[in-house]
Amino acid sequence: MTSTSSPCAACILLRRRCAKGCVFAPYFPADQPLKFASVHKVFGASNVNKLLQELPEHQRGDAVSSMVYEANARVRDPVYGCVGAISSLQQKVAELQAQLAIAQAEIVCLRMYQGSDLLTFNTKMTSFSPPVAPSSPSR
Amino acid sequence: MTSTSSPCAACILLRRRCAKGCVFAPYFPADQPLKFASVHKVFGASNVNKLLQELPEHQRGDAVSSMVYEANARVRDPVYGCVGAISSLQQKVAELQAQLAIAQAEIVCLRMYQGSDLLTFNTKMTSFSPPVAPSSPSR
Repeated sequence: MTSTSSPCAACILLRRRCAKGCVFAPYFPADQPLKFASVHKVFGASNVNKLLQELPEHQRGDAVSSMVYEANARVRDPVYGCVGAISSLQQKVAELQAQLAIAQAEIVCLRMYQGSDLLTFNTKMTSFSPPVAPSSPSR
Repeated sequence: MTSTSSPCAACILLRRRCAKGCVFAPYFPADQPLKFASVHKVFGASNVNKLLQELPEHQRGDAVSSMVYEANARVRDPVYGCVGAISSLQQKVAELQAQLAIAQAEIVCLRMYQGSDLLTFNTKMTSFSPPVAPSSPSR
Protein backbone atom coordinates (compact mmCIF):
# COMPACT_ATOMS: atom_id res chain seq x y z
CA MET A 1 0.00 0.00 0.00
CA THR A 2 1.21 3.48 -0.83
CA SER A 3 2.20 5.45 2.25
CA THR A 4 0.88 8.95 2.88
CA SER A 5 4.31 10.36 2.00
CA SER A 6 4.01 8.89 -1.49
CA PRO A 7 0.56 9.64 -2.90
CA CYS A 8 -1.17 7.06 -5.09
CA ALA A 9 -1.82 7.60 -8.80
CA ALA A 10 -5.46 8.49 -8.11
CA CYS A 11 -4.64 11.17 -5.55
CA ILE A 12 -1.92 12.59 -7.82
CA LEU A 13 -4.41 12.87 -10.71
CA LEU A 14 -7.17 14.24 -8.48
CA ARG A 15 -4.67 16.63 -6.83
CA ARG A 16 -5.65 15.72 -3.32
CA ARG A 17 -3.86 14.50 -0.21
CA CYS A 18 -3.44 10.70 -0.17
CA ALA A 19 -4.71 10.06 3.34
CA LYS A 20 -3.95 6.93 5.32
CA GLY A 21 -6.56 4.33 4.34
CA CYS A 22 -7.13 5.91 0.90
CA VAL A 23 -9.43 3.46 -0.93
CA PHE A 24 -7.50 3.84 -4.19
CA ALA A 25 -3.95 3.53 -2.84
CA PRO A 26 -3.68 -0.31 -2.73
CA TYR A 27 -4.76 -0.66 -6.37
CA PHE A 28 -3.40 2.44 -8.10
CA PRO A 29 0.31 2.82 -7.35
CA ALA A 30 2.01 6.06 -8.37
CA ASP A 31 4.18 4.26 -10.93
CA GLN A 32 1.11 3.19 -12.97
CA PRO A 33 -0.63 6.52 -13.67
CA LEU A 34 -2.47 5.32 -16.81
CA LYS A 35 -4.31 2.63 -14.86
CA PHE A 36 -6.21 5.20 -12.84
CA ALA A 37 -6.43 7.70 -15.70
CA SER A 38 -8.46 5.28 -17.83
CA VAL A 39 -10.94 4.24 -15.11
CA HIS A 40 -11.32 7.90 -14.15
CA LYS A 41 -12.00 8.88 -17.75
CA VAL A 42 -14.58 6.13 -18.29
CA PHE A 43 -16.25 5.59 -14.91
CA GLY A 44 -15.28 8.70 -12.99
CA ALA A 45 -13.31 8.69 -9.74
CA SER A 46 -16.46 9.15 -7.67
CA ASN A 47 -18.15 6.05 -9.13
CA VAL A 48 -14.99 3.95 -8.73
CA ASN A 49 -14.68 5.13 -5.13
CA LYS A 50 -18.34 4.30 -4.41
CA LEU A 51 -18.09 0.87 -6.01
CA LEU A 52 -14.94 -0.02 -4.07
CA GLN A 53 -16.43 1.20 -0.78
CA GLU A 54 -19.45 -1.05 -1.32
CA LEU A 55 -17.28 -4.17 -1.77
CA PRO A 56 -15.45 -6.20 0.87
CA GLU A 57 -11.69 -5.66 0.69
CA HIS A 58 -10.91 -9.14 -0.66
CA GLN A 59 -12.99 -8.42 -3.80
CA ARG A 60 -11.66 -4.94 -4.53
CA GLY A 61 -8.55 -6.10 -6.40
CA ASP A 62 -10.65 -8.11 -8.87
CA ALA A 63 -13.13 -5.25 -9.22
CA VAL A 64 -10.29 -2.83 -10.05
CA SER A 65 -8.80 -5.27 -12.59
CA SER A 66 -12.13 -5.71 -14.35
CA MET A 67 -12.82 -1.96 -14.36
CA VAL A 68 -9.35 -1.22 -15.77
CA TYR A 69 -9.95 -3.85 -18.48
CA GLU A 70 -13.37 -2.37 -19.31
CA ALA A 71 -12.05 1.19 -19.28
CA ASN A 72 -9.12 0.38 -21.58
CA ALA A 73 -11.51 -1.38 -23.96
CA ARG A 74 -13.78 1.69 -24.00
CA VAL A 75 -10.81 4.02 -24.61
CA ARG A 76 -9.68 1.82 -27.53
CA ASP A 77 -13.19 1.41 -28.92
CA PRO A 78 -15.53 4.21 -27.77
CA VAL A 79 -18.52 2.74 -29.61
CA TYR A 80 -18.49 -0.88 -28.45
CA GLY A 81 -15.98 -1.05 -25.61
CA CYS A 82 -15.57 -4.56 -24.25
CA VAL A 83 -19.02 -5.48 -25.58
CA GLY A 84 -17.16 -5.73 -28.91
CA ALA A 85 -15.02 -8.51 -27.41
CA ILE A 86 -18.17 -10.26 -26.13
CA SER A 87 -19.70 -10.07 -29.59
CA SER A 88 -16.54 -11.49 -31.25
CA LEU A 89 -16.34 -14.29 -28.69
CA GLN A 90 -20.03 -15.17 -29.14
CA GLN A 91 -19.41 -15.38 -32.89
CA LYS A 92 -16.33 -17.57 -32.28
CA VAL A 93 -18.39 -19.89 -30.02
CA ALA A 94 -21.08 -20.19 -32.71
CA GLU A 95 -18.45 -21.00 -35.38
CA LEU A 96 -16.77 -23.62 -33.18
CA GLN A 97 -20.14 -25.19 -32.30
CA ALA A 98 -20.94 -25.46 -36.02
CA GLN A 99 -17.50 -26.98 -36.80
CA LEU A 100 -17.92 -29.43 -33.91
CA ALA A 101 -21.38 -30.47 -35.12
CA ILE A 102 -19.96 -31.13 -38.61
CA ALA A 103 -17.05 -33.13 -37.16
CA GLN A 104 -19.39 -35.19 -34.96
CA ALA A 105 -21.66 -35.88 -37.92
CA GLU A 106 -18.61 -37.04 -39.91
CA ILE A 107 -17.62 -39.36 -37.04
CA VAL A 108 -21.11 -40.90 -37.05
CA CYS A 109 -20.93 -41.40 -40.85
CA LEU A 110 -17.44 -42.93 -40.67
CA ARG A 111 -18.54 -45.31 -37.90
CA MET A 112 -21.66 -46.30 -39.84
CA TYR A 113 -19.57 -46.81 -42.98
CA GLN A 114 -17.08 -48.86 -40.99
CA GLY A 115 -19.96 -50.95 -39.57
CA SER A 116 -21.43 -51.57 -43.05
CA ASP A 117 -17.95 -52.25 -44.43
CA LEU A 118 -17.33 -54.94 -41.80
CA LEU A 119 -20.78 -56.36 -42.53
CA THR A 120 -19.96 -56.52 -46.26
CA PHE A 121 -16.60 -58.14 -45.41
CA ASN A 122 -18.27 -60.80 -43.22
CA THR A 123 -20.93 -61.47 -45.87
CA LYS A 124 -18.26 -61.88 -48.53
CA MET A 125 -16.20 -64.17 -46.25
CA THR A 126 -19.07 -66.66 -45.87
CA SER A 127 -20.08 -66.74 -49.55
CA PHE A 128 -16.61 -66.52 -51.03
CA SER A 129 -15.13 -68.56 -53.92
CA PRO A 130 -11.34 -68.00 -53.93
CA PRO A 131 -9.89 -66.59 -57.12
CA VAL A 132 -7.20 -68.53 -58.97
CA ALA A 133 -3.97 -67.54 -57.26
CA PRO A 134 -1.57 -65.82 -59.65
CA SER A 135 1.62 -67.79 -60.37
CA SER A 136 4.66 -66.58 -58.44
CA PRO A 137 7.03 -64.55 -60.54
CA SER A 138 10.19 -66.47 -61.54
CA ARG A 139 13.41 -65.06 -60.17
CA MET B 1 -36.76 12.18 -30.33
CA THR B 2 -38.36 13.40 -27.16
CA SER B 3 -39.80 16.89 -27.51
CA THR B 4 -38.98 19.64 -25.04
CA SER B 5 -42.49 19.38 -23.60
CA SER B 6 -41.77 15.73 -22.63
CA PRO B 7 -38.36 15.51 -21.00
CA CYS B 8 -36.18 12.43 -21.61
CA ALA B 9 -35.38 9.88 -18.88
CA ALA B 10 -31.92 11.44 -18.36
CA CYS B 11 -33.26 14.96 -17.83
CA ILE B 12 -35.98 13.66 -15.52
CA LEU B 13 -33.37 11.86 -13.39
CA LEU B 14 -30.95 14.80 -13.49
CA ARG B 15 -33.83 17.22 -12.74
CA ARG B 16 -32.97 19.56 -15.56
CA ARG B 17 -34.78 21.06 -18.50
CA CYS B 18 -34.70 18.77 -21.56
CA ALA B 19 -33.60 21.35 -24.12
CA LYS B 20 -34.07 20.96 -27.85
CA GLY B 21 -31.10 18.96 -29.14
CA CYS B 22 -30.50 17.23 -25.77
CA VAL B 23 -27.81 14.61 -26.47
CA PHE B 24 -29.57 12.00 -24.29
CA ALA B 25 -33.12 12.44 -25.60
CA PRO B 26 -32.91 10.20 -28.72
CA TYR B 27 -31.57 7.26 -26.70
CA PHE B 28 -33.19 7.55 -23.28
CA PRO B 29 -36.96 7.92 -23.67
CA ALA B 30 -38.99 8.81 -20.60
CA ASP B 31 -40.75 5.44 -20.59
CA GLN B 32 -37.44 3.58 -20.01
CA PRO B 33 -36.11 5.24 -16.86
CA LEU B 34 -33.94 2.28 -15.77
CA LYS B 35 -31.88 2.43 -18.97
CA PHE B 36 -30.46 5.81 -18.03
CA ALA B 37 -30.39 5.07 -14.31
CA SER B 38 -27.94 2.20 -14.80
CA VAL B 39 -25.52 4.05 -17.11
CA HIS B 40 -25.67 7.06 -14.78
CA LYS B 41 -24.90 4.87 -11.77
CA VAL B 42 -21.95 3.13 -13.45
CA PHE B 43 -20.44 5.71 -15.83
CA GLY B 44 -21.92 8.97 -14.60
CA ALA B 45 -24.10 11.27 -16.70
CA SER B 46 -21.17 13.60 -17.39
CA ASN B 47 -19.00 10.81 -18.86
CA VAL B 48 -21.88 9.45 -20.97
CA ASN B 49 -22.57 12.97 -22.24
CA LYS B 50 -18.89 13.52 -23.09
CA LEU B 51 -18.58 10.17 -24.86
CA LEU B 52 -21.71 10.77 -26.95
CA GLN B 53 -20.61 14.29 -27.89
CA GLU B 54 -17.29 12.89 -29.15
CA LEU B 55 -19.01 10.41 -31.48
CA PRO B 56 -20.73 11.04 -34.81
CA GLU B 57 -24.51 10.73 -34.51
CA HIS B 58 -24.73 7.49 -36.50
CA GLN B 59 -22.57 5.71 -33.90
CA ARG B 60 -24.29 7.03 -30.78
CA GLY B 61 -27.10 4.46 -30.76
CA ASP B 62 -24.60 1.56 -30.71
CA ALA B 63 -22.50 3.31 -28.07
CA VAL B 64 -25.56 3.75 -25.83
CA SER B 65 -26.56 0.09 -26.32
CA SER B 66 -23.09 -1.14 -25.39
CA MET B 67 -22.91 1.19 -22.36
CA VAL B 68 -26.34 0.05 -21.15
CA TYR B 69 -25.21 -3.59 -21.55
CA GLU B 70 -21.99 -2.91 -19.63
CA ALA B 71 -23.75 -0.93 -16.94
CA ASN B 72 -26.40 -3.61 -16.37
CA ALA B 73 -23.66 -6.24 -16.16
CA ARG B 74 -21.80 -4.14 -13.56
CA VAL B 75 -25.00 -3.62 -11.54
CA ARG B 76 -25.66 -7.39 -11.56
CA ASP B 77 -22.03 -8.28 -10.81
CA PRO B 78 -20.16 -5.37 -9.15
CA VAL B 79 -16.88 -7.33 -9.01
CA TYR B 80 -16.52 -8.59 -12.57
CA GLY B 81 -19.18 -6.76 -14.60
CA CYS B 82 -19.21 -7.84 -18.22
CA VAL B 83 -15.58 -8.99 -17.92
CA GLY B 84 -17.18 -12.02 -16.22
CA ALA B 85 -19.02 -12.77 -19.48
CA ILE B 86 -15.76 -12.39 -21.43
CA SER B 87 -14.04 -14.80 -19.08
CA SER B 88 -16.87 -17.38 -19.41
CA LEU B 89 -16.87 -17.05 -23.19
CA GLN B 90 -13.07 -17.45 -23.36
CA GLN B 91 -13.43 -20.63 -21.29
CA LYS B 92 -16.22 -21.86 -23.58
CA VAL B 93 -14.03 -21.18 -26.65
CA ALA B 94 -11.14 -23.14 -25.08
CA GLU B 95 -13.48 -26.09 -24.26
CA LEU B 96 -14.93 -26.13 -27.78
CA GLN B 97 -11.45 -25.95 -29.35
CA ALA B 98 -10.39 -28.94 -27.23
CA GLN B 99 -13.54 -30.91 -28.17
CA LEU B 100 -13.00 -30.05 -31.84
CA ALA B 101 -9.35 -31.18 -31.69
CA ILE B 102 -10.46 -34.51 -30.17
CA ALA B 103 -13.17 -34.96 -32.80
CA GLN B 104 -10.74 -34.15 -35.63
CA ALA B 105 -8.19 -36.61 -34.21
CA GLU B 106 -10.93 -39.25 -34.07
CA ILE B 107 -11.79 -38.57 -37.72
CA VAL B 108 -8.13 -39.04 -38.70
CA CYS B 109 -8.00 -42.34 -36.73
CA LEU B 110 -11.25 -43.59 -38.26
CA ARG B 111 -10.03 -42.75 -41.76
CA MET B 112 -6.69 -44.46 -41.13
CA TYR B 113 -8.49 -47.48 -39.65
CA GLN B 114 -10.81 -47.56 -42.64
CA GLY B 115 -7.80 -47.44 -44.96
CA SER B 116 -5.99 -50.24 -43.09
CA ASP B 117 -9.24 -52.21 -42.88
CA LEU B 118 -9.65 -52.11 -46.65
CA LEU B 119 -5.99 -53.10 -47.00
CA THR B 120 -6.51 -56.06 -44.65
CA PHE B 121 -9.65 -57.00 -46.55
CA ASN B 122 -7.79 -56.96 -49.88
CA THR B 123 -4.87 -58.96 -48.41
CA LYS B 124 -7.25 -61.55 -47.00
CA MET B 125 -9.12 -61.78 -50.29
CA THR B 126 -5.94 -62.76 -52.15
CA SER B 127 -4.64 -65.29 -49.57
CA PHE B 128 -7.94 -66.74 -48.45
CA SER B 129 -8.81 -70.39 -47.80
CA PRO B 130 -12.58 -70.66 -47.43
CA PRO B 131 -13.80 -72.16 -44.16
CA VAL B 132 -15.87 -75.32 -44.22
CA ALA B 133 -19.39 -74.08 -44.68
CA PRO B 134 -21.58 -75.02 -41.74
CA SER B 135 -24.37 -77.42 -42.60
CA SER B 136 -27.70 -75.73 -43.07
CA PRO B 137 -29.99 -76.16 -40.10
CA SER B 138 -32.77 -78.64 -40.76
CA ARG B 139 -36.20 -77.13 -40.74
